[in-house]
Amino acid sequence: GTVGHRNTTKWDVRSSQTANNTFNPIRALVDEMDIRPNPEKKVITLSLGDPTVFGNFQPAEQVLQSVVDAIKNGKNNGYSPSFGHATARDAVAAYVSVQGPEVNGGDVYLASGCSDAINMAISVLADPEDNILIPRPGFSLYETLSLSQGIHVKHYDCLPEKSWEVDLEHLESLIDRKTKAIVVVNPSNPCGSNFNAEHIRAILEVAENNKVPILADEIYADLVFHDKSFHSFSSLSSSVPILSCGGIGKKFLVPGWRMGWVVVHDRNEIFGSEIRTGLVKLSQRILGPCTLIQAALPGILSTPEACHQETIAKLEKNADLLYEKLRIIPGLKPIKPEAAMYMMVGFDRNHLPEFKDEVAFTERLMCEQSVFCLPSKCFKYSNYFRIVLTVPEDQTEEACKRLEEFCLKHYKP
Amino acid sequence: GTVGHRNTTKWDVRSSQTANNTFNPIRALVDEMDIRPNPEKKVITLSLGDPTVFGNFQPAEQVLQSVVDAIKNGKNNGYSPSFGHATARDAVAAYVSVQGPEVNGGDVYLASGCSDAINMAISVLADPEDNILIPRPGFSLYETLSLSQGIHVKHYDCLPEKSWEVDLEHLESLIDRKTKAIVVVNPSNPCGSNFNAEHIRAILEVAENNKVPILADEIYADLVFHDKSFHSFSSLSSSVPILSCGGIGKKFLVPGWRMGWVVVHDRNEIFGSEIRTGLVKLSQRILGPCTLIQAALPGILSTPEACHQETIAKLEKNADLLYEKLRIIPGLKPIKPEAAMYMMVGFDRNHLPEFKDEVAFTERLMCEQSVFCLPSKCFKYSNYFRIVLTVPEDQTEEACKRLEEFCLKHYKP
Ligand SMILES: Cc1ncc(COP(=O)(O)O)c(C=O)c1O
Ligand SMILES: Cc1ncc(COP(=O)(O)O)c(C=O)c1O
Repeated sequence: GTVGHRNTTKWDVRSSQTANNTFNPIRALVDEMDIRPNPEKKVITLSLGDPTVFGNFQPAEQVLQSVVDAIKNGKNNGYSPSFGHATARDAVAAYVSVQGPEVNGGDVYLASGCSDAINMAISVLADPEDNILIPRPGFSLYETLSLSQGIHVKHYDCLPEKSWEVDLEHLESLIDRKTKAIVVVNPSNPCGSNFNAEHIRAILEVAENNKVPILADEIYADLVFHDKSFHSFSSLSSSVPILSCGGIGKKFLVPGWRMGWVVVHDRNEIFGSEIRTGLVKLSQRILGPCTLIQAALPGILSTPEACHQETIAKLEKNADLLYEKLRIIPGLKPIKPEAAMYMMVGFDRNHLPEFKDEVAFTERLMCEQSVFCLPSKCFKYSNYFRIVLTVPEDQTEEACKRLEEFCLKHYKP
Repeated sequence: GTVGHRNTTKWDVRSSQTANNTFNPIRALVDEMDIRPNPEKKVITLSLGDPTVFGNFQPAEQVLQSVVDAIKNGKNNGYSPSFGHATARDAVAAYVSVQGPEVNGGDVYLASGCSDAINMAISVLADPEDNILIPRPGFSLYETLSLSQGIHVKHYDCLPEKSWEVDLEHLESLIDRKTKAIVVVNPSNPCGSNFNAEHIRAILEVAENNKVPILADEIYADLVFHDKSFHSFSSLSSSVPILSCGGIGKKFLVPGWRMGWVVVHDRNEIFGSEIRTGLVKLSQRILGPCTLIQAALPGILSTPEACHQETIAKLEKNADLLYEKLRIIPGLKPIKPEAAMYMMVGFDRNHLPEFKDEVAFTERLMCEQSVFCLPSKCFKYSNYFRIVLTVPEDQTEEACKRLEEFCLKHYKP
């Protein structure tokens, strides 16, 4: 018996604080929004960060065939080491070595999607009560994962008037003794920005001066438009320790396959063996990503460059179309994207005074025009909405028309 | 400038306590063991809980074909809801409803392997400083996951002389105000035990009387030998709230594919919506298992029963062989398994006094006979070693011979 230990007369089961604190701001906000479309107009969804939903972006045949081969081979059904098979890690190492300093398979830790990679990277660097610095506007997963573990986040500003470059002074002002990482997302979701080498160097200098490691989310590496170049953070520093997170979901158009990685860049041995051991230990919690996709990685990662060029060309075409159409709509101010799959569009509250904020704006846009965009509140930012560049051209064009009608109706000169 | 905030003169990056506390006892122990084989004898590995390593257990053709079909279909590359696609959840619901009370897709939360399912189940029930009760001897993942999050574990004893049934008094004595779950693993790794209905009811009564939910790890459901039946915990209670964790890795012989699930059994609405909401939130951290495997689930789970019967027959044959041979070796005391893929073998230190513990025993067995088994210390238990039942028959027989030679050599009457 346990009398005295425990109230045994009635059930009282509650969900943990850990679960309660696992908070996805996009979900929470969208669930609370009033998003009833206009029944007279077909809905156009410009909100989904999944390039596969419309069918206009398809993975290359080689990507699919590589998994079929992995199944046929018959040797890829057992457990892998929790941080990934050596051949898969080697393939990732060769692949990312093109973008920056050479790494080898031992520097690569596979994960179940870039989300899990980010989870491992945050978890290995920060403990409850520590903090990490994350961009604003920014992808919400960093906050979700941190708060879930009792790690604090502080938001540094990115500046629309400077193509979303980081406000370096603001960034530096946030650093304190408990800051365990500067998170950079380049190219950016939700901004579609792509930092130039000089700006990356400036961020690295802040990291170096304050001795804070960089966690670089580079899942959109290489998805940059034709006249821009992607620079990885690791390619521009040999002294700042960097954990670079990536994955195949976006570039190879298979986000559901859940394959990501953390690459350790540590040429000055500042992370030393401790961080690597930590990543190995953390990987043992769920034992790594699907072995079929691991076995397919060498094939997937060697998909001909032409396939990616086609993807990029389509994204860029949509970006140009949107930018040209939206910039002449009174009250709107699109920020031209240079990479990734998104663009941010500002709206001028002085001229669109009916809408008290971007949530009100996007709700009414849905209600009147059946066009759905994410309000920038999802990214901890005000007065913008995000449009994805992955929607078929005809729908993108129709959406622009409706946005024009909407703004003309509500514009106050 | 941040002078005063932070020492900026030298790097000092350490891995988090979270990572340091993520401790896999098997890895830690095996890494420290002295396991150099006898160069004159070919190594026989009886330690690996992966049924696919020897090639004698192969997934059914339908299992493989279901994934090929999922790829060919072309519609399974995008994100799923983080807790799984409705069709996949429905397929799991139909599958587990055969073993117990009927559930529907809404009761199923998919995860990246049973490990991730267990992680979600522990995380949703317990916070740092809470505790969960876990079996001894027992599978180490519960401890790894709990300690990683600052959740305490308390071990309750299972009794070899009672076919590894739970010492119910000991179990109940451990319950206190901070106990958030009783973890049961049935059939068991490492014991190969399978509880009868009466014993399960007795455990449920302890849970009911103390108002503690059950976390049932039923990944070896149905892998029970011919004259035994599997009873799920949920089939024998309508009042105790139960989270049942499972997956396809073991029964369908594809542990690398990382597909598992938590099924919520809550007919009295004790978990209510809170635990379900918590599971949804937790699933948003890494966005669910591979969508190709999700799409293949209806096909995988409807694999003809004959395939499983063949698997079970092979396991049972090996179990019989091992049991019959080992029980007559002086100094050894195998406990007959009734399910799963493992058996525990005790050794009598009175008659094998050279070995101060099971680690010394298994090290020397490797050194002299090139046979490797896991010492029960990996499972927080003493004076046993674990043998897997998935090794090809000829190697199993050879291992028995060597064990006999070894024991005869060291036996003191
Ligand atoms: C910046 C960024 N990082 C990480 C992720 C997550 O990637 P994955 O789907 O591989 O987990 C996303 C997904 O949208 C993203 O936009
Ligand atoms: C009792 C038990 N539960 C859970 C697991 C983990 O299963 P999975 O490989 O699906 O993560 C194992 C693996 O050996 C196990 O023995």
